[in-house]
Amino acid sequence: MKIVLDAMGGDIGPSVNVAGAVEAVEEWDVEVILTGNQKQIEDELQKFSYDKERITIVNCTEVIENSDKPSTAIRKKKDSSLVVGFEMIKEKKADAIISAGNTGALLAGGLFIIGRIKGLKRPALAVPFPTPKGLSLLVDAGANVDCKAQHLYEFALMGSLYMEFVGQLAKPKVCLVNVGAEKEKGNELTKEVYQILSSSDLHFEGNIEARDIPSGYADVVVCDGFTGNIILKLFEGVAQTFSDGLKNAVLSDWKSKLGGFLMQPAFKSFKKQFDYTEHGGVPFLGVNGLVIKAHGSSNSKAIKNAIKQARITHEALLIDKIKDRISEMTDTGNSIEGENR
Amino acid sequence: MKIVLDAMGGDIGPSVNVAGAVEAVEEWDVEVILTGNQKQIEDELQKFSYDKERITIVNCTEVIENSDKPSTAIRKKKDSSLVVGFEMIKEKKADAIISAGNTGALLAGGLFIIGRIKGLKRPALAVPFPTPKGLSLLVDAGANVDCKAQHLYEFALMGSLYMEFVGQLAKPKVCLVNVGAEKEKGNELTKEVYQILSSSDLHFEGNIEARDIPSGYADVVVCDGFTGNIILKLFEGVAQTFSDGLKNAVLSDWKSKLGGFLMQPAFKSFKKQFDYTEHGGVPFLGVNGLVIKAHGSSNSKAIKNAIKQARITHEALLIDKIKDRISEMTDTGNSIEGENR
Repeated sequence: MKIVLDAMGGDIGPSVNVAGAVEAVEEWDVEVILTGNQKQIEDELQKFSYDKERITIVNCTEVIENSDKPSTAIRKKKDSSLVVGFEMIKEKKADAIISAGNTGALLAGGLFIIGRIKGLKRPALAVPFPTPKGLSLLVDAGANVDCKAQHLYEFALMGSLYMEFVGQLAKPKVCLVNVGAEKEKGNELTKEVYQILSSSDLHFEGNIEARDIPSGYADVVVCDGFTGNIILKLFEGVAQTFSDGLKNAVLSDWKSKLGGFLMQPAFKSFKKQFDYTEHGGVPFLGVNGLVIKAHGSSNSKAIKNAIKQARITHEALLIDKIKDRISEMTDTGNSIEGENR
Repeated sequence: MKIVLDAMGGDIGPSVNVAGAVEAVEEWDVEVILTGNQKQIEDELQKFSYDKERITIVNCTEVIENSDKPSTAIRKKKDSSLVVGFEMIKEKKADAIISAGNTGALLAGGLFIIGRIKGLKRPALAVPFPTPKGLSLLVDAGANVDCKAQHLYEFALMGSLYMEFVGQLAKPKVCLVNVGAEKEKGNELTKEVYQILSSSDLHFEGNIEARDIPSGYADVVVCDGFTGNIILKLFEGVAQTFSDGLKNAVLSDWKSKLGGFLMQPAFKSFKKQFDYTEHGGVPFLGVNGLVIKAHGSSNSKAIKNAIKQARITHEALLIDKIKDRISEMTDTGNSIEGENR
C-alpha cells in the first residue's frame, strides 16, 4: 500500500517524519510518499540507508502552519505538503494520508478535498486510548462541537466498525457519555441519543459516567465533539499534574529519591501504559479515504506507529465497511441522510 | 451560627455525621442541629463527650434514599431529615444546611423549599478543587445540564463572588471552559458566553482548555452543568486509574516494594493534595440560603470540614453579597432576569 506522509507536519518537523517513515518501511511492506520541502527531506533521508523504491518525495513549496486558519489555508495553499497529499488521495495515487500538523486543516482537507462518504453527515475524530483492559475508542474527539442526536449515532456506528475490524473485537461495547448511568439522565441531546442507540443494532450498553471511561469498561465511548475534546484534554492535564506531583514526591528527600530509583523500572512500565506514541494516530472517520492525524508532538516512534495503524486499517478495509454499512441502511430505508435532525 | 446537618445523609450514615459534628463544635463556635432518627443519632452521640447545648437533635421519621426520585421525595417525604432541615432554613431557624445524601434531592429542596435568589435564573453547584496553586472553583458542576449563555454568566458571577469573599482573592480570575484558547473557538453556547463575559465587569481571562484546568490557572472555571459533571467525574476516574496503576507498580517486584516503602511519606503528602476531605463540600449557589452538599462517601473529617466551610461562607456574608450584586444589576437596568435567553 501507498501512504502519503506530510513531512512538514508536527511540532518538530521533517526529522521525525522522515525517521518514522524509514523505520516503517524497514518493518512492513509499505511505500511512503513524503510531501514537503525536497531539500529538507533529502537532508534528513541521507542520514539513513533505506529502500529508495519505497520512500519517495513529492516536492511542495508551501507549508500550512499551526497558526493558519484551516479552511483558508486549504483553499489558498494549494502547493502545501498537506493539500498536495490530499489531492493524491483524491486521485487514488495513494491509499492513506498521515499528518502531525494543523488538526483543523486536516479536517478541512478531509471534508473539502476528499469529501464525506455518501449518506454520512458528520465525519468524526476517533481517538484510541489505552486502558487497563486494552484500547478504547473515543468518538467524536473534537471534529463537531455542535451536534444533533443523529450525528452521535453516526459516531457510534463508525466507532463500532473501527473496533470490530481494526480492533478485532467481535461485538464492541458502545456506551454514551452521560451524567448518570440511568437512561432518564442527561441533557436534551443525550436523552435523544439514548433512544436512538437503544433501538439500533449496535451493541449499546447504555450510559457511561466520565469516571468510568479510564477503566476501559466501554470499547466505544460516544459523545459530541465538544465533550470529547474536554475529555481528551482533561485526561492529558490530569496525567500531567499527577506526573509532576509524583516527580516532586520522588525529589522531596533522600529516602524518596532512593525509593524512586528502585521503582524506576516499575514507573517506566506504568508510564508506558499511558504513552500515546505506542498507539499510532487518530483516524478521521467518515471521509471517503483513510486520513490519520498524528499527535503534534509526535516523535519518530509515534509516526512509525501511525503508519502501522494506517496499514492495519487499510487491510481491514474499514472505509469499505463503513460505506457498505451506510449504503445497506440507505437501501433498507434507514437512511441517516434522510432525516434532517 | 446554627447549622442543620442531615444526620442520615451519605453512604455511611449517622456515625460520620455525628462524629463530624462533635469534632466541629469542639473546634469552632457553632451550633449543630442534627436531623434524623433520634435513636440512631443518640446511639452515636453517646460515644463522645460534647457540649450538649451546641448539638441538638430534631427527630424525623423518614429518610430520602439515593435511589429516590429527587422531586418526588422532596414533595412526599415531608418528615425526612432533609426536608425538615430545609424547612428550618426557610423559617430562619438555622443559617446553613449540610447534607451528604442524594444530590438531586438537595438541589430540588434548595429550589422548591428555599427558592432562588430574586433575579437569578439558575442556581449552580460550585466545586472547590485542589490545584498546585491553591483552590479553584468549578461552576456549574452538574445542577443544570441544559444551559443558555446567560446562565453561564450567572455561574461566573456567583463563582467570582465566592472566590472573592470566601476564598479571599482580590480579583478572582474567571475562565470559560472551551475547546481552544482563541475567542472564536467553541460551540454555539460558548461563543455567546464569551461575548457576554468579555463585556461584563468580571475579571474574565478568556477560554481555558481542559488540559489547563488542573494546573490552577483559573480561580473560577465556568461551564454548563453537563460539561462540569464530565470534568469532575473524569478527574476522579483518571486519579483512580493512576492510583491503581501506581499501586500495581509498587507491588510488581521486590525492588519496587522496597522503593514504595521508602516513598510512603512522599506518596502520602502527594495524595493529600488531591484529597476532597480536606476541602469541605460543594455549595449550591443562587438559592436563598446557605446549602452545602458534602461528598456521598464523606468521613467525619469531610463532614467537619463542610461545617468549617459553612461557617466561613456564613461569616463572609456570601448570600447577601450575591443578593446585593443581583439587585444592583436590576436597579441599573442590567437585569439578568429581564432577558429570556
